[in-house]
Amino acid sequence: MDECIFCKIVNGELPSFKVYEDEDIFAFLDLRPVHPGHTLIIPKKHSVTVLDTDEEVLKKLMVATKKIAKAVYESLEIKGFNITFCQFEVGGQTVPHLHAHIIPRYEGDGLKFWPSREYESDDHKKEIQEKITRLLK
Amino acid sequence: MDECIFCKIVNGELPSFKVYEDEDIFAFLDLRPVHPGHTLIIPKKHSVTVLDTDEEVLKKLMVATKKIAKAVYESLEIKGFNITFCQFEVGGQTVPHLHAHIIPRYEGDGLKFWPSREYESDDHKKEIQEKITRLLK
Repeated sequence: MDECIFCKIVNGELPSFKVYEDEDIFAFLDLRPVHPGHTLIIPKKHSVTVLDTDEEVLKKLMVATKKIAKAVYESLEIKGFNITFCQFEVGGQTVPHLHAHIIPRYEGDGLKFWPSREYESDDHKKEIQEKITRLLK
Repeated sequence: MDECIFCKIVNGELPSFKVYEDEDIFAFLDLRPVHPGHTLIIPKKHSVTVLDTDEEVLKKLMVATKKIAKAVYESLEIKGFNITFCQFEVGGQTVPHLHAHIIPRYEGDGLKFWPSREYESDDHKKEIQEKITRLLK
């Protein structure tokens, strides 16, 4: 993708603080981190979300994410972290090239990722369950 | 794990609104959703975080997550979603059995997952980069 900034980072046209690279995967520091060490892991081959990404690429991405998460966890001596994919603009995705965030977390850092609520009823749960399940049969 | 509530859900000792199951993976509705359709995907085999999970299990989890995310996306006609792993209590993990959240998102739903900030300097970036990279060589 000629205009994709993550593709440009992969091929060296744009600089980055790289932390990992193999044949298929590239990882670098997010320059606007939640906490220092916030890392982005991307497949080198361009795709936008998990939905248009080959299974083989997703497997490699997940294996690399474990490896890099371990390095972030141990090197920064953190006690927890998040792995997050924002998918599509409505999902908070700002660069349309698939990327996993590894976000270091600290006790009392005040981050609350989401408010939760109750379903209206068990019928509401069943209705949603059936909608999703229908496409998985 | 005798006392793990997700293990109990997998083996049927506790009820759930199941949306998917295969040999290795189980998925069900989060009962305190961010939005209806918020789904949890877990490996049947107990582990706590990605760090103590076999690579083969992580691969299967990621492939199933794509499949289920597609079903959530299409069945609920949403425009975006998040895939998130909270790792360790400090990372917001409330059940110590590895799980991926699929969180439907809606335009203007007001969810802001995290505040971001700048690094102090390029030297600070390099320092963090080197710490992490040292464990990946």
